[in-house]
Parts: sequence; C-alpha cells; structure tokens
Amino acid sequence: MMVDLTEFYSASARVMSRSLIRELLKLTRRGGIISFAGGLPDPSTFPVAELKAITTQVLDREPHMALQYGPTEGDARLREELVRWMAKDGIRVTRDQVLITSGSQQGLDVIGRVFLDPGDLIVVERPSYMAALQVFRMHRVEMVGVAQDDDGMRVDLLETTLAGLAAAGKRPKIIYVVPDFQNPSGVTMSESRRRRLLALAREYRTLVVEDNPYRELRFEGEAPPPVAALDEDGRVIYLSTFSKTLCPGLRIAWVAARDEFIQQFVTAKQGMDLCCPAFTQAIAAEFCASGAIYARVPAIAALYRRKRDAMLGSLEREMPPGVTWTHPRGGLFLWVRLPEEMDSEQLLRPAIEEEGVAYVVGSGFHADGGGKNTMRLNFSYPSEKEIEEGIRRLANLVKKRMPKEVTPT
Amino acid sequence: MMVDLTEFYSASARVMSRSLIRELLKLTRRGGIISFAGGLPDPSTFPVAELKAITTQVLDREPHMALQYGPTEGDARLREELVRWMAKDGIRVTRDQVLITSGSQQGLDVIGRVFLDPGDLIVVERPSYMAALQVFRMHRVEMVGVAQDDDGMRVDLLETTLAGLAAAGKRPKIIYVVPDFQNPSGVTMSESRRRRLLALAREYRTLVVEDNPYRELRFEGEAPPPVAALDEDGRVIYLSTFSKTLCPGLRIAWVAARDEFIQQFVTAKQGMDLCCPAFTQAIAAEFCASGAIYARVPAIAALYRRKRDAMLGSLEREMPPGVTWTHPRGGLFLWVRLPEEMDSEQLLRPAIEEEGVAYVVGSGFHADGGGKNTMRLNFSYPSEKEIEEGIRRLANLVKKRMPKEVTPT
Repeated sequence: MMVDLTEFYSASARVMSRSLIRELLKLTRRGGIISFAGGLPDPSTFPVAELKAITTQVLDREPHMALQYGPTEGDARLREELVRWMAKDGIRVTRDQVLITSGSQQGLDVIGRVFLDPGDLIVVERPSYMAALQVFRMHRVEMVGVAQDDDGMRVDLLETTLAGLAAAGKRPKIIYVVPDFQNPSGVTMSESRRRRLLALAREYRTLVVEDNPYRELRFEGEAPPPVAALDEDGRVIYLSTFSKTLCPGLRIAWVAARDEFIQQFVTAKQGMDLCCPAFTQAIAAEFCASGAIYARVPAIAALYRRKRDAMLGSLEREMPPGVTWTHPRGGLFLWVRLPEEMDSEQLLRPAIEEEGVAYVVGSGFHADGGGKNTMRLNFSYPSEKEIEEGIRRLANLVKKRMPKEVTPT
Repeated sequence: MMVDLTEFYSASARVMSRSLIRELLKLTRRGGIISFAGGLPDPSTFPVAELKAITTQVLDREPHMALQYGPTEGDARLREELVRWMAKDGIRVTRDQVLITSGSQQGLDVIGRVFLDPGDLIVVERPSYMAALQVFRMHRVEMVGVAQDDDGMRVDLLETTLAGLAAAGKRPKIIYVVPDFQNPSGVTMSESRRRRLLALAREYRTLVVEDNPYRELRFEGEAPPPVAALDEDGRVIYLSTFSKTLCPGLRIAWVAARDEFIQQFVTAKQGMDLCCPAFTQAIAAEFCASGAIYARVPAIAALYRRKRDAMLGSLEREMPPGVTWTHPRGGLFLWVRLPEEMDSEQLLRPAIEEEGVAYVVGSGFHADGGGKNTMRLNFSYPSEKEIEEGIRRLANLVKKRMPKEVTPT
C-alpha cells in the first residue's frame, strides 16, 4: 500500500517547475514533426572515429587513472588544456582558476549554491536562458530583467535599473549574461556594451556571470572579447562547455573564476557529486592535446551557417508582414516576434497537431512571464530541407491565425 | 587589481566544510606513505579490456545517441538493466522508479534538494557516512545520531530517540542508513533490525534513505534483504552505484524510489546538470546487458576478502591490548577503537610524518563530533603487503602513545 508522502517536500521542491525545453524535447521523437524546439547539435558533427581512437588510447595508456575517482576540481591535464583554449580568446587564467563541471548547468547550480540566498536579487537579460532562470528560481531569488536589442543587453537600461535599485537600498548579487549568440535571441553584445557592463558592475558592486557556450560558432564578423577577458578585478565568473564543439554526450563544461571562488565551488561540488567522470575528462583532455578540438570548429560553424541561411531565407520568403526575427551571426538559435496580439503559447498545440512543427514559446525565457508573442527557433539540429519545410508550416499557421489588424513589432 | 568579494557568499556556502576524506586523498600521492585513508577500489579490478570492446561497440552502433544529450532520468536501457540488477536482491521497481545519478553523492544531493529545509531533523547512524553528513549539513538541518553495535543501528535506541522527539513535538523527515558493510564501521544491520526500522519509520511517519554501495561485496554469510525489499508503503529511497563493482571513473549510480519522488528528483536534476553523460550510461548499459557486471563480482569480493583477512590478521598480531576493531563480512572498511583516552586526530600527524601511514579520523563520521578515539581503515586499495606493513606502523605508533592506564573499550 502506497501512503501519501508529498508533505515531505522542501520549500525549494515546491517552487521547482519542470523545464519546458526538456518536456518539449519529447515531442521531437514523434514521427512527422519538424522540431525547432530543441537545442541539440547536429549529430553529423560528432567526431566518432576520433573518439574511438582516443578512447582506446586512454584505456591503453592510463586505465587506472581514467577509471578511478578523480579530484573534485577536475582532471589536471584537461584544466591545463582549457587554460590554453580560453587564452585564444584573451582570457588569462591559471589551472587553479578552472573547475570542471557536468555541463554548464552544473556550473550555474554551483554558483547558485555558493552565492544565492532566498530573496537575493539577480539581473538577467530579457529574454534570458530558460534553464538559468530555473536554477535561480530554485534558489528563490528575485529576478529583474533588462531588455535587449540587436547589440545585446541595453546597458543604458541596466544603469537605470541598478540606480533605481540602489535608490531603494537594493543591490543585485549577480548580473547574468549570455553575450555571444544568446540563447534564446541569437544576438551578440557589442564590445562597448561589454565594457560598460563591467564598469557598472564595478560601480554598483555586483558579480557578473558570463555564460558563453556558443562563442566558437561564429559565422561572420569580428568577435568582441569575452567579458571575462576585459575583467580587471576578478568579478566575472566565466562558464563554457564542449557540448557544442565536441559533443554533449561527455558533459564536459567548466567554470573559470578567481582562485577563492573556485575553492569555494570545489567545496560545494564535493557535496554535489564528488567529481566528474575521470573517463570522459581523460578523453576530452586528449581531444584537446591532439589539436582535434581546434581543427573541427570551422566545419561546424560552416554547417550551422548554411542552416541559419536556410532559416533566414525561408522566413523571408514565407512569413507575412508583421512578423520579425533576429539575424544571429553565430550560435544555434534565432528569435521570432509575432504581432503583439498573437500568443505563441496558444499557437503551440495547433502548430504541433495541425502543422507538425514545434518551437519553444518565448514566455519561458522571460523572468517576468512576458514575451507572449515570441518564440525561439533552433537551426542547428534540423536539416536544411526540414528547416525549409518547417518554416513553411509555421508561416502557414501564423498566416491562418493572424488577426486582421496588427500592431507592428 | 583583485577586490575582496567574499561578502557575496550564501548562508549555505558559509557552513560548507571541505571533506576530510577528499583532503586526505592528497596524502596518498606522497611517496612512501601507506594510506588506509581513501575509499578507492583496487584498480586491478577495473575491466579494461571489456570496456575497450564495449566502448568501440557503442561508438559503432549508436554514436548519435551515445554522444548526444540524453533524458534527465537517464538512459532507458540502463534503467531497465538496473531494474533487473536490483531484482536479484528482491527490490521490485519499474524503470520509471529509477533515476541515474553522477555517483551516489548526487543521489544524496538530490534528496537534500527535494526534501530538506533548514532546521529539518534527520536521524543518522553513529558513526555515519561522512559525505552524507556533509550534504545534510549544507542544507542546514539538525542531525541526531543513533549508536550502532555489531548488528548495525540499535533500533531500541532509535525507538527511544523517535519517542523522545515526538514527545517534544518533533519528527525527523529522514532516517539515513548504510545497512550493508557500513561506511565507516563495516558492520551490517540484521534482518530483524531492518524490519523494526521500517516499522518505526511507519509508526513515526518518516522516510528512510537506504544507501547501499557495498552490498555486492559480501565475503561470507547470508545476505539479509535490503531495507527497500521489505518496504511495503514506498517510504524507502534506495541508493546504489557501480563505482565499487564496475569502476568509479564512469560515475554511474542510481536512486530507486516511488514514481512521484523520482519525478520530483528529475525536476531537481534538470536544474542540477540536465542529464548524466549519455556515453558512460550507454557503456554501463551494455556492460550489464552482456552479463559482465554479474560475472565479475565474485572475483572482486574474493580479492577484498583476502585483503580484509590480511588486515584482521595484522591487527590481531600487532595491536596492543585495549584496542578493538570490527570484523566486517564485506565491503571496503573496518573501524578501530583506541582506548578512550586516545585521540586519533592528534595521532594523525605523527602517523603520517613519523610512521608513514594514514587513516581517517573517526570524529568526522559523527554528527555530534564524538568518536575521538576511533579511526576508519580501508583495505580495498592497498596491497596485502602494504596492509601488513601499514598496520605494523600504525600499531607501533599506538603502542608508543598509549597511556599507562587505559579504560577498556
């Protein structure tokens, strides 16, 4: 006999909500549906042959280390390689300033553990990365969104926000940004805004969390430096990952930050999972040392560029007037704005059931529940043919449901 | 210029303490030291050749799945295999009642997230697993220890404790036990006590967390059923791992519990790391499906039995009267009690620096800081020769430091 035990849940558990992204991923398995909802890399980019060779090599050369427990901070050789990997972007850190994590999600979680108390304040972009909002929400913090435009977070509005909070005696602990090819919007923050962001963080004494998983996947234009490369007083905590450049299946990601933050993260991670798998870390270290990680990035970027072009071209051809979208210069996503009168959440069921196309509704990316007329589209996973057909289906639905009179976006 | 930013730490971060186990692991790397401090499996047991073959097979057969993101709850095939693995011990669960975790440590953490609020009450064994105490402490709960004897937790004292708490209007959320070859003591809870534990949990309406990483490593005697196999109303949450039976380097562990608990754990894990690596899970699934996991357990148990015998024999030969120890019938550890007047923490420095031998001080396993005269010794990692030499060194130190008049333990 099963008795009811739900009374046992913690206050955190009571505010946890299942990620819309993860729930929607299940849809992609139904036949006939073209999904722009996920955030998956194209599996044709996975370096299967190289991984087979490297795995065998690791098991031949260092099985006792690769199959044993490892240090909580991560494989020393991999951390050395990451120092080199980040140096190409101007981020100057030592091995002791790097912690290996199980995906950037664990990096966000460890930051939450070490810095966040219920009631703390966090500034996020509007829209912002859904799974980060989920972590912050789990820590029962208050979030304030600052709008973006095509050059990223509006730092003028950030200043107004910080000044307003300061006037009310409040100070955010963290400003959370995804400056390169943002998830969900695809936009990139300009260098001058990055510098202004840092100056404001210094002035108002907050930390900056820079989440940068897509940086390598640039299709065109000059890359502005990472915010972490401009940081002079150790207030930026930098997150990155090999999920988009090597493959997600190893779950290799990392946090770079000042020594004492890393030490505190290590203490937290001991309680979270002791250490990441030594096996996957040894493979990733060898993958870096061999140069394979450096060699493969251009081909992935070229593939995703073609897919983005296919999506932009299809949107241009198919969408009715009144619908706009971003033009990302890299990454995995673009962002569509329907006329204000439309609601992407209400459209999702007919999109899937009538048209056979899926996306992520925009409101999930808004700390304040706004963005009802927006949606995130992924172009890295579907094929170019699927992109063309899927956008045709989506445009079809939008045209059918579009009100007669619309407000221009 | 680095500015001071320590004011940013959360309340949880302020109570985090680095694990003594992990810190001491570093000692094992110094030359000439024989360490009984770790909890590492013997690397000679790692199935290197099988893993090489299986890894290649996984990358040949299902690279797009093994290298992609996976479901948060874990690889479906692995969960099926774990249902079969647990069934041999009488645990009846379905695939939907299993969550894959990154080590049992993550299982403990997810339980903490979902159930624990600051100020909650937990009952633990005295002594109890250090890293579990660390997780509970991070959640700022109150812990009550219940003494063990050679048959495990004293359920008569558990009853007194629960009754006393109830009289004071208090009720623990969780009773945490490691019933088989406990870490640190090595003792096993008798079947009648397991039944009594469950009856008390039902009477006083608490959950039971059964952490069972060593169960397979039984050297002799009949195995009592897991507590989870005796559970009739779904109040036991069962944790186990392949770290001791396959290898730690894949970090494959799992939680089994009633459906709605698993669903809540999945929601929490989404925020923690999205999912465990698909690659290591695919390897573990194949390792189970091939039968290799079942085939290898007897040889590991036989090896550790020889090592335990070496340690028991050496203790018998070398230790002076007044020192006692447990006689584990399986697992990785035994527990030494020095005379009450002695302090194993004070002995640790001379043990390492003068004698070249290391152990874990017992107080770290006590929620109340007691157990000053105790120590945990690991026999799975050192060789039989090292065990003999290490115990000789340790006994040497104990004899030198032993007070003239001692209280029998």
